[in-house]
Parts: sequence; C-alpha cells; structure tokens
Amino acid sequence: MDKTDVLIIGGSAGGPVAGITAKRHYKDVKVTVIRKEKEGQVLVPCGLPYIFGTVGTPEKNIIPDTLLTGNNIDFIVDEATSIDRETKAVATASGKSIRYEKLVLATGGLPIIIPIPGKDLGNVFCAKKDVDYLNSLLKTLDEVKDVVIIGGGFIGLEFADELKKRGLNVTIVEMLPHCLQLVFDEDFCSVVEDRLRERGIGVKTKVQAEAILGEKKVEGVRLNTGEELKADLAFMCIGVRPNTELAQKAGLQIGETKGIWVDDYGRTSDKDIFAIGDCAEKRSFFTKKPSPLRLASIACNEARIVGANLFGLKRRNEGVIGSFATIIGDSGTGLAGLTETAAKQAGFDVVTGEVKTPDKHPGSIPGAKEFRVKLVFERATQEILGGQVCGGSTVGEVVNVLAALIQNRMTANEVATFQYGTHPFFTPSPIPYPIVNAAEVALTKLRT
Amino acid sequence: MDKTDVLIIGGSAGGPVAGITAKRHYKDVKVTVIRKEKEGQVLVPCGLPYIFGTVGTPEKNIIPDTLLTGNNIDFIVDEATSIDRETKAVATASGKSIRYEKLVLATGGLPIIIPIPGKDLGNVFCAKKDVDYLNSLLKTLDEVKDVVIIGGGFIGLEFADELKKRGLNVTIVEMLPHCLQLVFDEDFCSVVEDRLRERGIGVKTKVQAEAILGEKKVEGVRLNTGEELKADLAFMCIGVRPNTELAQKAGLQIGETKGIWVDDYGRTSDKDIFAIGDCAEKRSFFTKKPSPLRLASIACNEARIVGANLFGLKRRNEGVIGSFATIIGDSGTGLAGLTETAAKQAGFDVVTGEVKTPDKHPGSIPGAKEFRVKLVFERATQEILGGQVCGGSTVGEVVNVLAALIQNRMTANEVATFQYGTHPFFTPSPIPYPIVNAAEVALTKLRT
Repeated sequence: MDKTDVLIIGGSAGGPVAGITAKRHYKDVKVTVIRKEKEGQVLVPCGLPYIFGTVGTPEKNIIPDTLLTGNNIDFIVDEATSIDRETKAVATASGKSIRYEKLVLATGGLPIIIPIPGKDLGNVFCAKKDVDYLNSLLKTLDEVKDVVIIGGGFIGLEFADELKKRGLNVTIVEMLPHCLQLVFDEDFCSVVEDRLRERGIGVKTKVQAEAILGEKKVEGVRLNTGEELKADLAFMCIGVRPNTELAQKAGLQIGETKGIWVDDYGRTSDKDIFAIGDCAEKRSFFTKKPSPLRLASIACNEARIVGANLFGLKRRNEGVIGSFATIIGDSGTGLAGLTETAAKQAGFDVVTGEVKTPDKHPGSIPGAKEFRVKLVFERATQEILGGQVCGGSTVGEVVNVLAALIQNRMTANEVATFQYGTHPFFTPSPIPYPIVNAAEVALTKLRT
Repeated sequence: MDKTDVLIIGGSAGGPVAGITAKRHYKDVKVTVIRKEKEGQVLVPCGLPYIFGTVGTPEKNIIPDTLLTGNNIDFIVDEATSIDRETKAVATASGKSIRYEKLVLATGGLPIIIPIPGKDLGNVFCAKKDVDYLNSLLKTLDEVKDVVIIGGGFIGLEFADELKKRGLNVTIVEMLPHCLQLVFDEDFCSVVEDRLRERGIGVKTKVQAEAILGEKKVEGVRLNTGEELKADLAFMCIGVRPNTELAQKAGLQIGETKGIWVDDYGRTSDKDIFAIGDCAEKRSFFTKKPSPLRLASIACNEARIVGANLFGLKRRNEGVIGSFATIIGDSGTGLAGLTETAAKQAGFDVVTGEVKTPDKHPGSIPGAKEFRVKLVFERATQEILGGQVCGGSTVGEVVNVLAALIQNRMTANEVATFQYGTHPFFTPSPIPYPIVNAAEVALTKLRT
C-alpha cells in the first residue's frame, strides 16, 4: 500500500497550488497529487475559450507538469474511485490504495448539460477540460459555418468572441433579459451586448433553447418562441456543477449549492479531509451565506488557505468577494464584489457613485478608450461592497484594485483618499481618477 | 475689492481638484481659482514628455477649462503677487485685491537648472509647463539631430524615449551609478536601462555634465570625464523645486525639503491657508519624516484632503506612499511604497519575495510579456512596505493594487490570501499570480 502525508485529488488550478502551499508551510511532508489527465495534458482552465481563436491548439494551453515536479510533488495519473475514511486510504481505478494523513479534494466541476431533445446529437459540445475532446471540437470547427451558443454567461461570450475570430456565424441564446445578467448591473450588461453586436455576433435574450434539431448532427436550434436558428454546431455553456461524487460516496456533508460543505478553514465534515475549488461550497464575503461563484482564482485562493491549514489552522477563509473580468473584441468589463442589484437583493441599503473618463491621459494618447467605474457602498457603514468597470486592457488589474479596497472594507471616505498612482499610457488622469472620484460622488449622495 | 470664500492659487492638477472637492463638501461656497495660464492653456503635467513623440502638440495635452466652469468654479487669469494675512487678501499683478475666507496654495514646482557654463545658450530646454515654451521646443526639435538629456530620472527617460520616436540621436547623462536609482532597486534600474539601450538610446551613468558647449546655440556637452558629447539640443531634467516665493513673502513656515510646511490636515502655519502639491512639504507614510516625492497624483490626493478640510477637519493625511510607473518602448516599470534599498536606509529590517511569470495566461497568448514583482515586508510586523513591478501595459494599475495593500498595512499572510481575479488577456495566471506568490516566498523566508 502506498503512503503519503498529503494526498490531493485533482490536478487543475487548485490541486497543484494546495500542494505547493503545503510544501512551503510544511517543508518535509510528502505531497502526492492524483489526477486523471495524462502527462502534459492539464489545461489552463480560464484559457479554454482562447484555444479556438487566439492560441490555436489545446497543447498551447497547458499547465506544465514541472509545476508539480519542480516543487517536489509526486503525481500519479489515475482515477480516485473511493475514500475509506476509517483507514484513511483512497482506492484508485487501477487498483491502487493510497494512505493519507490529510486529504484534499479538488475534483472540480462538470459542465451542465440541459436535458433538451437533441442534446446527444453530433456537433453538440460543451466546455469540457479534456485535450482530446477539445481537439475534436477544433477539428469540427473547420467544417462548420453557423454556431449557436446556448447560455450567455462568461464562457459562452468568450467562446462566441473567439469563434467570431475564426470567421464563423455565431448566435448567443440567453434565457434572461441580458447576457451576464447574474454578473453585472443592467447598464454594464448592455455595454457588453453592444460590443458583441458590433463584432457581428447575434444576441438573442429572453429566449430558451427548446430543442437541438438534426438527424445525426446538429442542423438547427429551436427556441421557445418557435423560431428555428440554423446551426452546424451547438455549444452548451450553462455553467458548471460541483463534482462531488467521490465525496458523497464517502458520506461527506454536501452544502446548499451542492458543493462539498467546508468550514472557514476549508475542512469538510471529516477534519482530515479538505475541499477546494469548484467542488467545494463557498460563502459570501458580505453575507456569509452560500455563494454560487466558481472561478479558478477562487480555487487558488482556497488552495493557499487549505495548504497552510493542513497540519494546524493558520488561515481563515473570510468568504468569496468574487473578482473577475472578461474581454469582447478589445473591450474589457469586470467586477469585484457585489453589483448594485446583488447588494439590494442581499438586503443592503446602498449608495452608488459612477464616473466615466478616458483610460489614458490626455485622451489624445492613441488607443485611449472610455473607462467607466461604478462603485457600490453600504449606506450606514459607508463601506465599499463592490465595483464594476469597463474599459480596455487594464480592466483586469483595476478589478484587483477594487478587490483590495473591498477586502479591507474601506469606507467611501478612505476610497476617496486612496493613494493611487497614474501614468499617461497606463491609467486615467490623476484629476478624474475614476475610483476615487466615484467614491466622492457617492459621498455627495451620502451627505444628503 | 473682490471677495470669495475659497481662493486657490494655481490651475494645474491640484488647484482644480481642491476646488471641485470644496464644492462637493461645502455646496454653497464660492470658489475662485487664480492662475497664470490663459484660457485653454493648462497642460496635463504628466503628459509633458508625450507631446513630443506620441501626442504631437501641446494643444492636445490640455486640461479643459470646463473642469472649472463645469463645476461652478470661477477662474481668473492673473498672477498672485502677495498675500496679506491680516486682512486675508491676495494682491495680483493686474492690481486686483481678492479677499478670501480660506486660501489654498497650489503654486507647483519649478524645474531645477544646474548652474553650469552654457546653461543660458540657445537650445537648452527644461520641462517647463508653458504652451509657448513647449511649442518653441517642438519647433526646435525639427531642426536638430543630437540631443543630450541631463538627468536620468522619470522625466528625463520619458523625454528620451519620445525623442527617439522622432528619430533623434539621444543620450542620457546621469551622475548616479544607475538611471532611476532614487526610485527603484538596482535590478529594476538595470531592466529599464536595458530597454533604453535596446531602443538605441545612449545611457551614460556615473558622469556629470560639466558644461554645455557652443557659441550661441548648443554644440555639445562636456562631461567631468573630459568626454565631449555632440549635441544640438540639451535638455535639463534634474527635477523640480517647490515654488514657495509667495508663501515665503507671506512669512509662512518652510519645511526641511524646502516645501511649504503643512500639518496632517494640509494647513500651513496660518490655519486659514492650506498648501498642496509640488509647493507643499510632504511626509512619508512609513516614517512620517519629510519626503522629497513630487507627483501629480499626490497633488490630487492632497487636494481631496484639503478641499474637504477647508471649513472643518474631515480628512487626515497619513503621509505619502508614492505610487508611480513609467514606460520605455512598450515596457512598463513601477513602484508603490518603499524599495528594499529605501526601506533599509530608513532603518527597517526587511524580507523580500520576488516572482516572475508571463503577464497573460497561458504564456502563448500573443503579446504576453515577462511580468516581475518584488515585494518588501517589515520583518517584525510582517507588513508590506513596498512593491516593484515590471511588465507591459497593466503595470500602472498593478502599482495601484500594491498601493491599496500598502495603504491598508496588510501583512504577508494577508497578501498571500488576497482575493485577486484573473483573465487570460489581462493578468498572469491565477496559479502563480505574482503578488500573492511573492508574499508566499517572503513568508517562507520569515519562517526560517
């Protein structure tokens, strides 16, 4: 029987980071990762859509195995099939049994397939993290013209934008009134939808895909309005559900959002078993209630918490803020924390501040784009709850500025005197610098 | 005699922001700005170098007067010549006398001219914020070939890079061992110098300009090594000294770095007179000792503090962190807070962490550049003191992420679990995300 101090099940973002963190905090422990992906076949999760227009092949979107081997972490290509919590051992598909002191579940998520007629036809795809699968998708894309994307969330939009770069006719079908409606306030959703349309991507909202049509392969998609969209390929981007099969079989508690329940230190209902990433339950930073957010950056953050906590509790998870950005064409849009809508839904009495300005200064610098920031503050404490931003290539790191302000629960007055730096090519002007100015705008409202 | 509630002397970055902030915090006050620049002639200070290669003309680098008029702020084009603190009135060159309740001095800085032979020759220029002066520089640039820049600080390097874009032969002369030596740690200075040389810009360090040679116009620059550099134009970029003439004449206290002394609320030694920006003394966020930093973003920050404090103290200046970035070619380099060198000089016992990774993920995304972060922590408290970064176009906002972590005095452990977001086109990968990983590297050293 094999034996390791720390056994990690899952080789994508969270697993390796948990392993590296464990080695940093507990130098002499033996860490082993068990994963299904063969040597050199672990995909960069967030890079998935970009394989198809920008990067070119799944093989160029790989997390190198040296991430493990270079950090003295063993890895086994195999599938964990069951956990014996009594003897603290994991059984594998190849018949191995591996004993552990501490076990980390990083089993990820599985793409949701909606059970509509035609879902099993040829040329129906989803965002599956598998090199062979994505290569077959890539090959198929060379043979098709019209693509319907079912689901107007981040992944759906990013796939749409990339497939447009290949010259395909792309239509997004979203059941809610707006794409990204669960992510941004309506006015920011509209900005993104405008960009999609400018790029020649069809956007159909408030409609549901009722059936995928075709004999053997996709020939069309029928909507609940009766309309039939021509399609040679359908892409389901509804979201991801936590992969908890192993945990459930082992009798571990499951949470409200169907993830593996964990405490504030990342421990499951078994104190020697931790869970991180898409398979694990999350709580909101703001309300401490279960949160449906699933992101690679969150998985890595949880991995750094759990890796440090394995043999003694050092880091507490304060709950997910939710920081992310996306790109359509060359326009970026991002969020940290709560939108106005989400804050109100959670019961907060809020005040907002919004500012628009060029993202370079003077605005005559070539390539300057409109930059827009909307901040949300809680009225009584005046603490920042969230920020949305749209602009160009700096949006991703602006989201991180906002995340830092939120994580430190800064008040509108503190945000208004935040000591940002500026540069003509890199940032808006110091005079209207939008984050601090949006806080000033909110303060004006708070005083009345 | 004219009368205003708030009189602001100076129309560049700080003055208007102080006025806007005053109107936001004290709705009904009358705010007047008095400035020397004619209508439509206030330059964006940080944009000065970019007029010459990127933007094209001074007129495209203007702060619009609507910044004042659109915010119900009066402005007078005139020069303040003296302050009568007894009667609370300012006299002007045109013979006006303007009474004030509160006075804000935003008189800025003046370029330092080193008193070497030849300094008054034709074609010797400096970074003077004056449209006519810059237009004459622009005209002269069309007639010259060889330019020597005296001073290897930010402005000198940015001018060098822009003049190179015009196809000129450019050489930088710096007396210290490295360009930007007072700004970055040596290894980051070297990165910048490499970029300059790759761009074909001459870099001569550890040498002093001893004389500017020529009959009527510049013909060369003689160094203290005896070497003579051919030059048709010399550009002095030694730095800026606070413009305190008016304050001194009024008997206001002057500080150690020759700026107008102010308390933590921006008040000078006269409680009805405030001072902000390049003319005002600054204290370090870290040591509370006088700081020589002079930046437009700092001026705007002080303006927001003072504007709120005019009729009641609401905002305290915690001292300057110092957040800035620059660009050479398409490479960005930036700093927030203290370098390792500066922290040690200030007496801190420090631990550093450094990480390199591509600035997009996977690294195969087109345009990905090496991204490097170095963080400095104080050993006993483990609080972050500073961060340096080099990479591409996101460096300016990454500096602001660092500034937010520093302003909140986050510990290495808190930085390691900072809830950043990521996106393939906008940020490094969530796995090695360099800010949090550099904190983990520092923590490893702190534990040993």
